[in-house]
Amino acid sequence: MIRLALFQPEIPYNAGTLVRLAACMGFQIDIIGPCGFLLSEKHFRRAGMDYVKLADLNYHDSYEEFSLSLTPPYRLIAMVAQHGTTYTQFKYNVGDILMAGTESVGLPANIISKCGFAVTIPMQNSARSLNLAIVSAIISSEALRQLRV
Amino acid sequence: MIRLALFQPEIPYNAGTLVRLAACMGFQIDIIGPCGFLLSEKHFRRAGMDYVKLADLNYHDSYEEFSLSLTPPYRLIAMVAQHGTTYTQFKYNVGDILMAGTESVGLPANIISKCGFAVTIPMQNSARSLNLAIVSAIISSEALRQLRV
Repeated sequence: MIRLALFQPEIPYNAGTLVRLAACMGFQIDIIGPCGFLLSEKHFRRAGMDYVKLADLNYHDSYEEFSLSLTPPYRLIAMVAQHGTTYTQFKYNVGDILMAGTESVGLPANIISKCGFAVTIPMQNSARSLNLAIVSAIISSEALRQLRV
Repeated sequence: MIRLALFQPEIPYNAGTLVRLAACMGFQIDIIGPCGFLLSEKHFRRAGMDYVKLADLNYHDSYEEFSLSLTPPYRLIAMVAQHGTTYTQFKYNVGDILMAGTESVGLPANIISKCGFAVTIPMQNSARSLNLAIVSAIISSEALRQLRV
């Protein structure tokens, strides 16, 4: 229904947790490399549990390889810490691909520029930021909520 | 506006991540002990970052001590893996307290029985479960979404 793409994730616990989320909620998850850990890494497998096998998980060596997996119509939606549309006010479509950036710096500008849309979770103070897994969970569940109404 | 209470959390990374969430989203967070780690533990502080100091975080030695901190009117809402109201269909109120259980076994029956309400995130297969931090983030953000409409 939707797809979550992790761009060059750095923290195996976060990525594993999101693979578990994708398996439980029933959406596809993509990991776009190079990634800061091996998918055989113990923290990834521990956080992902047996869901790593169950999930519709696709690993791509590069953004270019990921882009070859995209079949129109689709929309790339950047999840950004600031200046996006408030994530609850955005209207999600079936086939949307939510793009998550790295834990340390988010999505690079050249990837954001490929996304037609950007969404943000409003926070108490714009200088603050949320954990990557938390952001991805909040926004993907809001997209599913809208699409299942 | 709402309050998130972690009952005897076991994994410092999850608890720290939720303290960060609470600080960023502007709600109170309670940790009900005994807890499986010290709040000075490095994984807790690493996941919580500087938000541990910024958050409205209250530690209670026991459920009894926690219950003394409650001032009516309030509702205790158990977050459970199965058999609760679908979390998006529940109508949240200002003052609601979302109760999260332990990572290994969830909320014990005697605590669920003190909660007047229970909510669940529907999943692909009822035998599966989500990470505690993910569940807490999804449900608390839905409560805030409703209350801010």
